[in-house]
Amino acid sequence: MIAATAAVPGFVGGTLDRADQVRSDPVRLAEAFADRRARMLLLDGLDPVVDGAAIATASLPEDAEPTDFVLLGIGAAGPVFAYLDPALGTAATYAPKVWAIAPLLSPDQLALYGTARSLIDWHARHGFCARCGTPTVPSKAGWARRCGGGTLSGSESEQRGCGAEHFPRVDPVTIMLAEHDGRVLVGRQPRFPAGRYSALAGFVEPGETIEEAVARELWEEAGIVVENVRYAMSQPWPFPSSLMIACVATARDDALTIDMTEIEDAMWVTRDEVRAALAGEAGARFLAPPEMAVAYHLFRFWLGE
Amino acid sequence: MIAATAAVPGFVGGTLDRADQVRSDPVRLAEAFADRRARMLLLDGLDPVVDGAAIATASLPEDAEPTDFVLLGIGAAGPVFAYLDPALGTAATYAPKVWAIAPLLSPDQLALYGTARSLIDWHARHGFCARCGTPTVPSKAGWARRCGGGTLSGSESEQRGCGAEHFPRVDPVTIMLAEHDGRVLVGRQPRFPAGRYSALAGFVEPGETIEEAVARELWEEAGIVVENVRYAMSQPWPFPSSLMIACVATARDDALTIDMTEIEDAMWVTRDEVRAALAGEAGARFLAPPEMAVAYHLFRFWLGE
Repeated sequence: MIAATAAVPGFVGGTLDRADQVRSDPVRLAEAFADRRARMLLLDGLDPVVDGAAIATASLPEDAEPTDFVLLGIGAAGPVFAYLDPALGTAATYAPKVWAIAPLLSPDQLALYGTARSLIDWHARHGFCARCGTPTVPSKAGWARRCGGGTLSGSESEQRGCGAEHFPRVDPVTIMLAEHDGRVLVGRQPRFPAGRYSALAGFVEPGETIEEAVARELWEEAGIVVENVRYAMSQPWPFPSSLMIACVATARDDALTIDMTEIEDAMWVTRDEVRAALAGEAGARFLAPPEMAVAYHLFRFWLGE
Repeated sequence: MIAATAAVPGFVGGTLDRADQVRSDPVRLAEAFADRRARMLLLDGLDPVVDGAAIATASLPEDAEPTDFVLLGIGAAGPVFAYLDPALGTAATYAPKVWAIAPLLSPDQLALYGTARSLIDWHARHGFCARCGTPTVPSKAGWARRCGGGTLSGSESEQRGCGAEHFPRVDPVTIMLAEHDGRVLVGRQPRFPAGRYSALAGFVEPGETIEEAVARELWEEAGIVVENVRYAMSQPWPFPSSLMIACVATARDDALTIDMTEIEDAMWVTRDEVRAALAGEAGARFLAPPEMAVAYHLFRFWLGE
């Protein structure tokens, strides 16, 4: 009844060797940059330029500066870089355009794109040292930024900075299905397409376990108390840099107190209703999240539990 | 044979209501701040001042400014705050002093301390906007910083900033035991006490799942290929802001290629050797990590698998 579906959520399954040891080794990094097989991803702003099921690539420009690029990794066909375009600006965009493009890409190419997007966007929005305010420059092959390497623009004199090293953010987010008596809780945010319901979600805060964050979110957003939180799977989500951590939890009862500032509606749905939604049936009680989202796969995990 | 041990790792099990809805509501936040039962944690720099099994507390000073405090949560005895001391400076310290103090605290108090420490340390090291370099000020009851609310020091004129909102970091870290043929892989870092071995660990990078990060770390640090990564448990680790994600994975073979820049030694140990180490036996093959660390509990998880 369920059509053929992706085995894993989107952005999962990258195949490049991330070559961590090359990032901090100037000699090996220079070799990778000079490798005649080296390619750079072609992007339109933060969106991928697609070539069949792959991201289009090009040779590195003749006059390219290594510090303007991030080394995404090394594959069978050579090193792969992404350009840190200074014209990108600092505005993080949610970029709905990528939703149409992403399903065209093979899983490993979508994963590569997700990595590139998170890193490029992080560089664009982290040009200054959070500790002292001085401009920072990319370091470690684009996997860090170092304070004090930059110069202030215009007539201002060079500033040395504090030397702090900053690393890209990865923000853990819990996304969860609470279950009670054979049904699971789904909710919708105002920005969702009409009819769409999905798993509830929220950022893990300092001082919490994953399980504590799941319980807090369900209490805050739906007023339910849960126990027995089970980890299901994870997914990188590059909008801009989330690590989605998907769980199922058991609710003590099914009385809801919805926080309308977070979600506009929530309801309990049965296994059959979830199956119909995942299959995209016309009469389904709700519209399921897209296969690219981990929520889609979390529903399948729960059906299989 | 194993002595009585803590049921959960350190920093797990906070009991305060984090009162998320109070943080963004100026009226409710002012009420919490004016509550005559409100207390602030007493700290010595970043270390806790201990009163029995609890962190010592005091009433809020008469002249206290709400924006200098973070609302940690609301308990049965009223709101609990921590002071964002501008004298703290920006140097993150690993603070070995806390190792001696932490075991004195009850689990919920240690969890409260971990939350406070991560937040205070984050504020101290994030006084400037990473997007534009302007000073930032605490917002949302200390759970964010807003760009543009601050003034430049000395004779410089007020600067408006870009208005960006910044949230505390939570950095996901995988910590893992690879198992092969009834043994698990342990390693030691040069900074460990003599004889100590523990699980290997590393940060999750942009574009990776938890499972992919586990596999990459074991490949990078020990040269082994793993499959079937199983999530075990998680722990907040406030040095400064890690979310430890503990897993067990199955190694295809036991040949090691150790990356000496990361670990100085690694070896496979049997179940009996792990049991002896956890029990602190004199003849144990290695010294186990402390009970406060999630690695200790990951060993127990593996023994129970």
